[in-house]
Amino acid sequence: MECVPNVSEGRNCQTITELASVLQTTPGISLLDSSSDIDHNRAVFTYVGEPEAMLAGTEAFCRRAFDLIDMTTHTGGHPRLGAVDVVPFVPLRGVEMAEAVDFAHRLGRAVGEMGVPVYFYEEAALSPQRRDLTDVRRGEYESLPSRLAEPSGRPDAGPATFNPRSGACIIGARRPLIAFNVNLGTTDLDVAQRIARTVRYSNGGFRAVKAMGVELKELGVVQVSMNLTDYTQTPIHRVVEAIRSEAARYGVPVVGSELVGLTPLEALDGVVRYYLQLHEFSSAKIIESHLL
Amino acid sequence: MECVPNVSEGRNCQTITELASVLQTTPGISLLDSSSDIDHNRAVFTYVGEPEAMLAGTEAFCRRAFDLIDMTTHTGGHPRLGAVDVVPFVPLRGVEMAEAVDFAHRLGRAVGEMGVPVYFYEEAALSPQRRDLTDVRRGEYESLPSRLAEPSGRPDAGPATFNPRSGACIIGARRPLIAFNVNLGTTDLDVAQRIARTVRYSNGGFRAVKAMGVELKELGVVQVSMNLTDYTQTPIHRVVEAIRSEAARYGVPVVGSELVGLTPLEALDGVVRYYLQLHEFSSAKIIESHLL
Repeated sequence: MECVPNVSEGRNCQTITELASVLQTTPGISLLDSSSDIDHNRAVFTYVGEPEAMLAGTEAFCRRAFDLIDMTTHTGGHPRLGAVDVVPFVPLRGVEMAEAVDFAHRLGRAVGEMGVPVYFYEEAALSPQRRDLTDVRRGEYESLPSRLAEPSGRPDAGPATFNPRSGACIIGARRPLIAFNVNLGTTDLDVAQRIARTVRYSNGGFRAVKAMGVELKELGVVQVSMNLTDYTQTPIHRVVEAIRSEAARYGVPVVGSELVGLTPLEALDGVVRYYLQLHEFSSAKIIESHLL
Repeated sequence: MECVPNVSEGRNCQTITELASVLQTTPGISLLDSSSDIDHNRAVFTYVGEPEAMLAGTEAFCRRAFDLIDMTTHTGGHPRLGAVDVVPFVPLRGVEMAEAVDFAHRLGRAVGEMGVPVYFYEEAALSPQRRDLTDVRRGEYESLPSRLAEPSGRPDAGPATFNPRSGACIIGARRPLIAFNVNLGTTDLDVAQRIARTVRYSNGGFRAVKAMGVELKELGVVQVSMNLTDYTQTPIHRVVEAIRSEAARYGVPVVGSELVGLTPLEALDGVVRYYLQLHEFSSAKIIESHLL
C-alpha cells in the first residue's frame, strides 16, 4: 500500500522535516519521497508499508500536522480545504482497492475524532457528488463555514463545525496518479489558464487530465499544474505535446516540467515509445523490473 | 552479476529454445530475456544470478551452443567470429568489476578446453589491442584460419587451431551496454552506412557509440545498428536526434527503433529529461527503484 498525503505547508522547512520524521520513525513504513513547493505552499509525502503500520503512521502524521499547521494564515497558489488537505491511499502490487477504501474510512473516523471534518473522495466516496476531488475542494478553505452549515456540506466523518486552525480533510483511495507540472516562459497567468482549459477534461480536453494555471512568482514563470489520473488512457507525452503546441500560438516556450512525488515505471513506457519511436518498448525491457 | 551471451543463430527457433532451457534449468540463475533477429541471424540471452551459478550455467550454455550451431553454413548481417560469438559478464549492484573479470577468465579456460580458441576483451583483455570488441572481431569468422596461424592472432585461451564448426569465442567483462537500433524508411543501405559513420566514435562521432549500417530485407528497411557503451556519457536521445537530423538530409524518415535485450532504468533518465524537459528527473522518481 502507498499513501501520499498533501499538507498545506511548503515554506517552513522545520515543519516539513518534523512531519517527515513522524513517518521515518514509524516501524513498518518507508518514506520514499517528500517534495515541497514555495509557491504552492504545499508539501507531498510518499510512503509505502505494511497495511496496519500505514494506518498507525498516517494517524500520527495527521495529528502532528494539525498541531503544526495553522490555516488561518495560509496562502498559496494551490486550492486547499485544510492543513492536511488530501490523503489518498493507493493500492500497489497485489493489494485490492477495497482494502485501500477500508483504510481511508478507518483513517477518516480517527481524523474526525481529532475534531476535523472529513470528506471521503474517489473510490472511498460515499456519494457520487464527492467522487471528484475538484468538486470536493470547490470554494476552498474560505468557504468551509457556510458549507458546513448546509446539509449538502455535511462531512462524512468528524464534526459538522468549522475548525479554523485545521480546516477540513479529504481522505480517499485511488489508482496511481501523476502530479505533473509544465512551466511556461512567461509571467502571463492568463496563458497558463487558457492552456489548462484546453488540456483538461472538464473543458473538453483529455479524459484523464485535471489542470489549472498557477503563477510561480519565485521563478518568474507560470505553470500548467496537472494531475494525470490515468496514464494508461492519457499518457504524459500526449499532454506535453498538446501544451507545447498550444503555447506556441502565444509565442511562449515550454521551459521545463516537473514530477511531484513518485511515478510508476509503467508511466514512462509511453514517453519512451513516442519520442524514441521505440514501438515495442515496455517496462519489461528494464532490468530493474525483473529484479523486484 | 549479469551475463549477456550473443550466439550466431537467429533463425532456428528450436536451437534458441534449447539454449534458453539450459539457462532456465540451471539452479540459481534467472533468464530475464532472450531476443533473436532473423536478418542479423543472431540471438542474445540476458540472465542474472549468484556468481558460482552464473559460471556453471554459462559453461553449460556454451557447450550446448557448440553442439547445436554450425558456423560453416552461417550467414547474417552482423559481424561474428564464432557460434558463441561474445560473452560479456556485467557487474550489477554491489558486484566489483574485478569479480566479473575473474569470471570471464575462468569461463575462457573452460571454453578453451572445449577446443574453441578464446579472446578476452574489454575489462578482461590481456593486451590493449584486444580491449575493443570491433578490433577483436575484425575480419570475422572467415579470417580465423589465417589469423590463428600468426603470432598476433594467438588466442588468450584454448587451441591456436581453426575450429570450423565453432569458430572462436570472445569473452569479457564490461559495464552495462545498450544495444540500440534505429530503422530508416529506405532500402538504400548506403544511407544507413553514411549515418552510422556520422554517429560512431571511430569516424569522429559520439565517444560511446559503435555503429554500422545493416539491411533488414524482411522489413524492407535499413538500420543503424548500435552499441551505446556508456549511456552516462552519450545518452540515447542525443544519438536518436543526431540520426533523425542526418536522415532528414536524405529525405529519409526514422520509422522505428528497438532495444535488444534489457536496459538499466538509469539509461532512460536522459530520455525523460530531454523530451519532457523534466530537468530534475532521475530514477529516484520511480516507485519501483525504491522497492528493490
